[in-house]
Amino acid sequence: MSTTRLEAFSDGVFAIAITLLVLEIHVPEGGGLWGKLGDLWPSYVGYGVSFLTIGIIWVNHHSTFARIDTVDRPLLFLNLLLLLWVAFLPFPTALVAEHIREGTDEDVAAAVYAGSLLLMGAAFFTTAVYAHRLHRLPREVLRTIAVRNAVGQGGYAVALAVAFVNAPVSLAICGLVAVYYVFPGRDLGSAGGGVTAS
Amino acid sequence: MSTTRLEAFSDGVFAIAITLLVLEIHVPEGGGLWGKLGDLWPSYVGYGVSFLTIGIIWVNHHSTFARIDTVDRPLLFLNLLLLLWVAFLPFPTALVAEHIREGTDEDVAAAVYAGSLLLMGAAFFTTAVYAHRLHRLPREVLRTIAVRNAVGQGGYAVALAVAFVNAPVSLAICGLVAVYYVFPGRDLGSAGGGVTAS
Amino acid sequence: MSTTRLEAFSDGVFAIAITLLVLEIHVPEGGGLWGKLGDLWPSYVGYGVSFLTIGIIWVNHHSTFARIDTVDRPLLFLNLLLLLWVAFLPFPTALVAEHIREGTDEDVAAAVYAGSLLLMGAAFFTTAVYAHRLHRLPREVLRTIAVRNAVGQGGYAVALAVAFVNAPVSLAICGLVAVYYVFPGRDLGSAGGGVTAS
Amino acid sequence: MSTTRLEAFSDGVFAIAITLLVLEIHVPEGGGLWGKLGDLWPSYVGYGVSFLTIGIIWVNHHSTFARIDTVDRPLLFLNLLLLLWVAFLPFPTALVAEHIREGTDEDVAAAVYAGSLLLMGAAFFTTAVYAHRLHRLPREVLRTIAVRNAVGQGGYAVALAVAFVNAPVSLAICGLVAVYYVFPGRDLGSAGGGVTAS
Repeated sequence: MSTTRLEAFSDGVFAIAITLLVLEIHVPEGGGLWGKLGDLWPSYVGYGVSFLTIGIIWVNHHSTFARIDTVDRPLLFLNLLLLLWVAFLPFPTALVAEHIREGTDEDVAAAVYAGSLLLMGAAFFTTAVYAHRLHRLPREVLRTIAVRNAVGQGGYAVALAVAFVNAPVSLAICGLVAVYYVFPGRDLGSAGGGVTAS
Repeated sequence: MSTTRLEAFSDGVFAIAITLLVLEIHVPEGGGLWGKLGDLWPSYVGYGVSFLTIGIIWVNHHSTFARIDTVDRPLLFLNLLLLLWVAFLPFPTALVAEHIREGTDEDVAAAVYAGSLLLMGAAFFTTAVYAHRLHRLPREVLRTIAVRNAVGQGGYAVALAVAFVNAPVSLAICGLVAVYYVFPGRDLGSAGGGVTAS
Repeated sequence: MSTTRLEAFSDGVFAIAITLLVLEIHVPEGGGLWGKLGDLWPSYVGYGVSFLTIGIIWVNHHSTFARIDTVDRPLLFLNLLLLLWVAFLPFPTALVAEHIREGTDEDVAAAVYAGSLLLMGAAFFTTAVYAHRLHRLPREVLRTIAVRNAVGQGGYAVALAVAFVNAPVSLAICGLVAVYYVFPGRDLGSAGGGVTAS
Repeated sequence: MSTTRLEAFSDGVFAIAITLLVLEIHVPEGGGLWGKLGDLWPSYVGYGVSFLTIGIIWVNHHSTFARIDTVDRPLLFLNLLLLLWVAFLPFPTALVAEHIREGTDEDVAAAVYAGSLLLMGAAFFTTAVYAHRLHRLPREVLRTIAVRNAVGQGGYAVALAVAFVNAPVSLAICGLVAVYYVFPGRDLGSAGGGVTAS
């Protein structure tokens, strides 16, 4: 199977998962609406962090598959596993928003959220490494991806630990990891590719 | 990254956001159905206005990206920010419909709706200006976009203010802005492009 | 704008609307599940009829746009109006299924459903006629489309009238119209095109 | 109609159906969240099995349509029938998860789930056989597809029977069928194609 096909299908899942996130924000009824809309802030933050995170994975997904031409069967299913986590993300996003708002077991919810991002990151890393090995890409590209991924995964691990101390701070750390990924890696750039390469 | 990729992903988000709008219209139960269906008019109006608005942004998005070949990393994330607002739109749409129907705090809901359109318009304008500057397109194209955008944003600002006086009228003004955008700009046409250019 | 772009976006809306239909079938809780699943028959029928109807419009949409190369601004917005009805369809589908199940005002619900299909058919016909006139296609093609459309619209009009006598029969007539459209038109075939032309 | 068009539309439906599965997992409220999240295990299993199953059908759908160039009208509607079952899958998935969790009539729910997969498999097989006959592909390819399909359908039939004895085991068997399909068929590979051929 060519990567075009796989990228088109993956794009579809990314686009749908990113757009379904809004369904978890429920319209408050009755009066005192400014206050009620304000109380929804964890939903807005969760929406923003998850939206940005999926958006970044979409960007990095392309930069990974733009470097290769074909996919074999294991890569196909590694990618499907990655999409399984991406499509799952609206659930932990709703979970953490709901429980920070309620103030019940927000530590558990934030831990599940950070843990989901950690697993999604691991699925992405596995897919990217397999894709690079399959096509014997330059060692520097792989190394840079590993370094940047380690920073991100480290951030999620910290967020997972912090969840049990302060859930909103844990959520904020997940947001910071997304912001980190927004900026291109220097090493990756110097390797002549970078995540914007097509 | 080529614009093709970005356009395909953006198209996906536009198509999904526009189709999710219907999920906010809830089926009324029990008897007296004509009356209950009639009471849902704010949902139909909200659906129509948001559908048309996203449809127009889709058209203008293409006309903007049809003029350029490549995107850099900032443009990628400016576009992602625009999509974040587009994908968010089903929420304020449901909010304004629900509260005009309920008759509770409809001024707040209508203000949030107009404000969301204002922010989405600002995100679109920023993306379009950046895209044009990046590729040093003719000054006239930029000016025409700025003029048309100013009219639209002015309309949304008026709708935002009117929301506190009369919510349905505020919603109607947002609809009028959409109708305004449906008609092509004269200047844009004379610049040899226009929003239908591909 | 080329038709490719418009077709891709329309395909997205068709695919999403057709897939969202399932969300209206709610999982029954508790015991006596065979009976409860059986009671959901109007939902299955509504799902099937709407799925098939949107599927057919997708097929005919392609056969229409496969004959032309470019779209102008009016065609763009006529197509958007068609998509507005397509994306709206999950609502009347859920409405008719819910009310036939409840046994309350099922005549109203079935009339709204048949009326929605009638309006969607009208939007499709307007779009197709405009597209054919724009590109001055052979008169026979137009005539055949008009004849087939008249049969279908006639069927929906009958379903609308029958709704006030027997709602399930009205729904069945809508299904028969879909089955009618599944079979290719003889005249259309002899005109060298047919809806399977690409 | 070329297969490109049909594949793009089918991809859209596959991607949306696979992503909608998450909407059936509802966020638990209140305290004792670890326990409540644990109670949701049938939802996670159902999500995983259905995700993998749709993913595999997507892969096999491509390998089938990659071998042919054009589709005729019957194939178009056989494919639409297949998509009807794919898009329907979120319903039985939610049904089996909900009833295993509740402990009410879980045998019925599991039987409906296995039965839906059986019908989806039959729709896929019919589509694939028709596509191969239409283009007179080598007999070996057809035979291998028939053998592999028979194994899978046999698995679903066993799952359907086991549903009345033990619902979770029935669900697990459906998962095993998916895992079976993940591994490529030897015969299919030796026929010079295999499901990864493009």
